[in-house]
Amino acid sequence: MLRQLVMHAPRLFNYPSRRLAHGGCSQILITRALSSAAMSPPSKAIVYDVHGPPDTVTKLVEVPAVEVKEKEVCVKMLAAPINPSDINRIQGVYPVRPNPPAVGGYEGVGEVLSVGSSVTSLSPGDWVIPSPPSFGTWQTYIVKNENVWHKVEKGVPMEYAATITVNPLTALLMLEHCVPLNSGDAIVQNGATSMVGQCVIQLAKSRGIHSINIIRDRPGVNEVKEMLKNLGADEVFTESELEVKNVKSLLGGIPEPALGFNCVGGNAASLVLKFLSEFILSRQGGTMVTYGGMSKKPVTVSTSSFIFKDLSLRGFWLQKWLSTDKAEESRGMIDRLLNLVQEGKLKYKMELAPFDDFSTALDKALGKLGSQPKQVIKF
Amino acid sequence: MLRQLVMHAPRLFNYPSRRLAHGGCSQILITRALSSAAMSPPSKAIVYDVHGPPDTVTKLVEVPAVEVKEKEVCVKMLAAPINPSDINRIQGVYPVRPNPPAVGGYEGVGEVLSVGSSVTSLSPGDWVIPSPPSFGTWQTYIVKNENVWHKVEKGVPMEYAATITVNPLTALLMLEHCVPLNSGDAIVQNGATSMVGQCVIQLAKSRGIHSINIIRDRPGVNEVKEMLKNLGADEVFTESELEVKNVKSLLGGIPEPALGFNCVGGNAASLVLKFLSEFILSRQGGTMVTYGGMSKKPVTVSTSSFIFKDLSLRGFWLQKWLSTDKAEESRGMIDRLLNLVQEGKLKYKMELAPFDDFSTALDKALGKLGSQPKQVIKF
Repeated sequence: MLRQLVMHAPRLFNYPSRRLAHGGCSQILITRALSSAAMSPPSKAIVYDVHGPPDTVTKLVEVPAVEVKEKEVCVKMLAAPINPSDINRIQGVYPVRPNPPAVGGYEGVGEVLSVGSSVTSLSPGDWVIPSPPSFGTWQTYIVKNENVWHKVEKGVPMEYAATITVNPLTALLMLEHCVPLNSGDAIVQNGATSMVGQCVIQLAKSRGIHSINIIRDRPGVNEVKEMLKNLGADEVFTESELEVKNVKSLLGGIPEPALGFNCVGGNAASLVLKFLSEFILSRQGGTMVTYGGMSKKPVTVSTSSFIFKDLSLRGFWLQKWLSTDKAEESRGMIDRLLNLVQEGKLKYKMELAPFDDFSTALDKALGKLGSQPKQVIKF
Repeated sequence: MLRQLVMHAPRLFNYPSRRLAHGGCSQILITRALSSAAMSPPSKAIVYDVHGPPDTVTKLVEVPAVEVKEKEVCVKMLAAPINPSDINRIQGVYPVRPNPPAVGGYEGVGEVLSVGSSVTSLSPGDWVIPSPPSFGTWQTYIVKNENVWHKVEKGVPMEYAATITVNPLTALLMLEHCVPLNSGDAIVQNGATSMVGQCVIQLAKSRGIHSINIIRDRPGVNEVKEMLKNLGADEVFTESELEVKNVKSLLGGIPEPALGFNCVGGNAASLVLKFLSEFILSRQGGTMVTYGGMSKKPVTVSTSSFIFKDLSLRGFWLQKWLSTDKAEESRGMIDRLLNLVQEGKLKYKMELAPFDDFSTALDKALGKLGSQPKQVIKF
């Protein structure tokens, strides 16, 4: 617990007179003074002292070396992405978040630098990711218990290992844990160009499941459609193309989907609902799973959709799923996803950004520089 | 099939020249002429030739006697209610409905008048209800196969036997088949004064389940609250009383409900969602089941309700449930409900209306004469 405070709140050391009053820090300082054990290198970290706009409240700070205890592993971080949920945590609008002062970031990949005396599962040089993901990946060195770390193959591209958990695992879990699907079935989703959306297309394709994809109207829509079809999308429609009386008439030979994914809300969610299969005899109506709300508009559903069409609506939240004793299962799924990456069956666009220029990467992630690929910090 | 045409479309006989072209009626007439089997009495029925406003398109007609075949039972109807779904079927807005010309009504109770030669399960004098319910109960005599009819105890009040299926069975099924509930748990519902709502309160009470009830603001609200509390309601709130920051602060000692029922939509549905229990650790978030939409407004749900609170939304439709091979199970549940009626644990307000003055009962059911109790036609 004390150790976590050190890792998550490196700025503590800049305010000793204020913080020492709490007792915790004085104990840490005593521990460090008395110990002669192996130490981590000093670290550099992106931290925030208060919640607020990420481009205002985050700053790069120096974090002193910490002891690597017998069951702990010191990891030199290689890469970590800036995800929308990271931004929401800094803003203070994400329901589960560390209390500031805290280090940003929630997933990433690193290389083991040193291990505590009783660590047997990992060795220096191993590549590891925090799994389940955990707070504070935006720093150059992290010291945490060995069971936090999941070893991944070094052959996998660094930027994929860094980003495999939050978005691809969400896509895989939603496809496998919401509604039973067989080869030949179909799913429908909005926000299809999002990272989860692109993963859904490819993971569905790898199981022989058709995907119907909804994107917003935008310049260069044909290139976007082409890109998604190259990933394996069966159909891609803009919202305005779906302003028809019966969207299902556009399905051609694709069966009505029993499962839909919504990460937008508003009209784009209504369009997903319109595609879903309805109750017929003993067949249940379809299910829409909401995992995001990019339009900031709510989901609106008619009474008859519930009663007569038998549609169901629910949510998916990776953090909830991982909180329910699924750590081991999730590591197996991550290995499967990284295998797909190595086989060339799972890809998505990213941009590696140097840690020294974090602020530009953050501006891109915040959308201040127009549409940009996923920003992945390279340490 | 031909027999059903006769039962469901008595006006056929008023238009022989037009209808005979279809062949069906001529066959029936021949069958009747050749047969010397037992016949039903002539019947009087409320029929509609086309979909439209029920007070315009329905009329009382005479239906000729029909043969009672060896496996059939002739039932003298005693009572049948006018339910909102009956009105919607006549209007043509209900998704599953008979094609006009058709007899109105969907549930009711009758007394066996005569049975076909091979009928063993029923005898003249028995009280029966169509179970599962079926079209055409607004007529004085009905002839249908013996397996259509479920025998009920004669001791039960006629108006309860006539109305036990559509509304009380919906309440019981929603309480027992949506979310596992134990004594001490709670449910929340809007439209609490509806017939289903009143049944939910009493059925929950009989299982030790607390009910939180939402009603619309109206004159005489205190009397309504008193009435619902006398039925067993733990809490009754008007919508305006729930214009507070945190509705759960009003729960007192009642646990947060894992199950909510919505028959209104709009703001009243949002209030149900606000009461529902949210995801905590391994506890799932609550479920709202929509079974009606009295406000004609859709249900609106925030993205965070799905993702972070883990709320689920679905619908309940009795007709769907009954279509999935549940006939036997539903008869057992009806017997349980009628037992509760006889024990005084299930009651609701009704008004018996003479068949001869059907039009007044219909006007009351249509809301043309202000708020009125459930109208039950007495034949």
